[in-house]
Amino acid sequence: MEPIIPGIQVRSREEDYINIQPIQAAGRLTLEARKALISYGDGYSVCDFCLRPFRLDKIHKPAINQFTLDLAEFLNMDEARVVRGARRAFQIVVNSLVEKGETVLVSSIGHYSLALAVESRGALWREVPLNEENIVTSEDVASKIDSIKKESGSLPKLVAIHHVDYQFGNLHPVAEIGKVCRDYGIPFLLNGAYTVGTMPVDGKKLNADFVVGSGHKSMAAPAPTGVLAATEEYAAKVFRTTKAEGDVSGRKFGIKETELLGCTVMGAPLVALMASFPKVRERVKNWDDEVEKVNYFTQEFLKIPGNKVLSELPRKHTLTKVDTTETFGKVSETHKKKGYFFTNELSKRGIVGPFPGATHAYKINTYGLSWSQIKHLSESYLDIAREYDLI
Amino acid sequence: MEPIIPGIQVRSREEDYINIQPIQAAGRLTLEARKALISYGDGYSVCDFCLRPFRLDKIHKPAINQFTLDLAEFLNMDEARVVRGARRAFQIVVNSLVEKGETVLVSSIGHYSLALAVESRGALWREVPLNEENIVTSEDVASKIDSIKKESGSLPKLVAIHHVDYQFGNLHPVAEIGKVCRDYGIPFLLNGAYTVGTMPVDGKKLNADFVVGSGHKSMAAPAPTGVLAATEEYAAKVFRTTKAEGDVSGRKFGIKETELLGCTVMGAPLVALMASFPKVRERVKNWDDEVEKVNYFTQEFLKIPGNKVLSELPRKHTLTKVDTTETFGKVSETHKKKGYFFTNELSKRGIVGPFPGATHAYKINTYGLSWSQIKHLSESYLDIAREYDLI
Repeated sequence: MEPIIPGIQVRSREEDYINIQPIQAAGRLTLEARKALISYGDGYSVCDFCLRPFRLDKIHKPAINQFTLDLAEFLNMDEARVVRGARRAFQIVVNSLVEKGETVLVSSIGHYSLALAVESRGALWREVPLNEENIVTSEDVASKIDSIKKESGSLPKLVAIHHVDYQFGNLHPVAEIGKVCRDYGIPFLLNGAYTVGTMPVDGKKLNADFVVGSGHKSMAAPAPTGVLAATEEYAAKVFRTTKAEGDVSGRKFGIKETELLGCTVMGAPLVALMASFPKVRERVKNWDDEVEKVNYFTQEFLKIPGNKVLSELPRKHTLTKVDTTETFGKVSETHKKKGYFFTNELSKRGIVGPFPGATHAYKINTYGLSWSQIKHLSESYLDIAREYDLI
Repeated sequence: MEPIIPGIQVRSREEDYINIQPIQAAGRLTLEARKALISYGDGYSVCDFCLRPFRLDKIHKPAINQFTLDLAEFLNMDEARVVRGARRAFQIVVNSLVEKGETVLVSSIGHYSLALAVESRGALWREVPLNEENIVTSEDVASKIDSIKKESGSLPKLVAIHHVDYQFGNLHPVAEIGKVCRDYGIPFLLNGAYTVGTMPVDGKKLNADFVVGSGHKSMAAPAPTGVLAATEEYAAKVFRTTKAEGDVSGRKFGIKETELLGCTVMGAPLVALMASFPKVRERVKNWDDEVEKVNYFTQEFLKIPGNKVLSELPRKHTLTKVDTTETFGKVSETHKKKGYFFTNELSKRGIVGPFPGATHAYKINTYGLSWSQIKHLSESYLDIAREYDLI
């Protein structure tokens, strides 16, 4: 096919293949989102009816206002905003609650963008270790809070932990962690980048002061889109409006929210996020089926002797880290195509996602695959194993 | 037409009308950008070939790396990055150069998002007044720098002035302002939200340390996209890489750029910005023609006695503030539809853009209109004036 312009080939990976790429699976657009992109491509396309009080989340046509309210309800939080990605949500919270030199407690496999948001503020990030099952426990959170208090004389100003982490796709005991934070009086940010939009997330039940979601990771939306939801108490802090005034002009900026820098996501990504939302809201109800499918896959995958699943078992999330060092990895050592033999074999069977040449530890995500696709995926692994005499 | 989902109507304003809305005109997507949205809608669609060193602006397929280099060259600056909107570019620069309590000098009609970025940092913004022609002069910049120094004991840490302002669309003497800043040793940020992508911008010639552009405002790209370009000296500061390290894990994040929070704009908006770029690069060469067209319009518009152009004349930019208080405004006082009579009359002639009911001071933007459209627009104003006995 002709390129769109030189250097930009038409991309048809989702149309042509079963895609198990770890971060792409739950961000795949719905048909409605794709229609929205065609109709609302221009950046200011949502501003045709920007009437008083002149703020993005108050616009009624298209129904951004209602969507913003729906988002808060969806997460069972008091207020929500669409922001320019989950990482911007982290930064908005950090800038609002943490001063230079103060500490934020994160997981030792927390996302790098959270660490950068803290570093940008001139603050420090400290890590909670994982236990032997690669889980952040509430006991370890409490103990790390104590040690920070002992060393620095102050409590961390924020605790930010993933609901499901990006390394193993493990589900962490966030309700208990939230409880610990509440006991210490430290606000708790739940990083739901892999869960908001895929599985049910009830922010209040999870004792979260903030819930962060990622549109392009788990809400079938384009980038850069994120959701920041907060309790009433903390909404007043992070969504505070501007207070400054021009020394010459005397102008003020009314209801513009300082940390959001005013309007956030406009046009294509916002409307596509909204357009996918009815399906996203429904799909989280099918989470048990998604979990059943990934567990079917891991069971089949483990029939190849030597294969390992590095994530917790049984799987509680579709993002899964596997290790085939002892199986396909061994084959790659003597194969003339090295590790590429394996991803080529997958590709021949209509499957893409693992990075080219991957035969050791790598992640996959089965989110959104149908049962017949899951069976084809599982059978393909077994088939390749048979072809290379591994079973 | 059926809505995309309830609450999201199909938008066909650009297809059905001549649109002179002030902020939409130069952000209108190209055909190539619209193709890119269809093909690269998913957020992580640009990550298929994210190979070492694992950074967005280093990806070769699609050609993000080359595009990033092209952008810097286009602006005649040393380095450039795509960021999540011009306002994020402001914030990145402010966070990098300004500490809490320090001062940033802005125009008294500078964009509110710049003021919010400063406020978010806990810093102060101070304004340069406009002269009687609504222009920020280099003398006034120098004099305000002196008074800040006198009052606070320190120079401002940054001067940020618009190339063309959003209120009048006036062109400011930014090369001279940049020269003044250089004399004081203060970095100068050129806000090119209305000029980068519409008219030629040579950052070095304009004595800019930073050039900021807006993809959705002036580069035929979706939101939220912005460009931040810097000289070599300041690129090292604003694009500095992360230095922090995990206290438990020992992990570092290598070449991730702290203030950018790592990867910035992915997927649809980025690829669409790239897809429009060849046409954008060409179109700035036709700027003289755009200016000729807007001046044709203002000349015709001023044939209606009482009409005023509040922007500088002759026009140097297509964004123009007009005032029809004494003409259509007078009619609106007794018309049963009030000011809506006027925008209805425009709409009957296939023209949209001024906010509904506008008959006093309002902005329009003729960017991208063909000569026949400009003539139709001008004739429509005159025709409506004749219909209401204003000429």
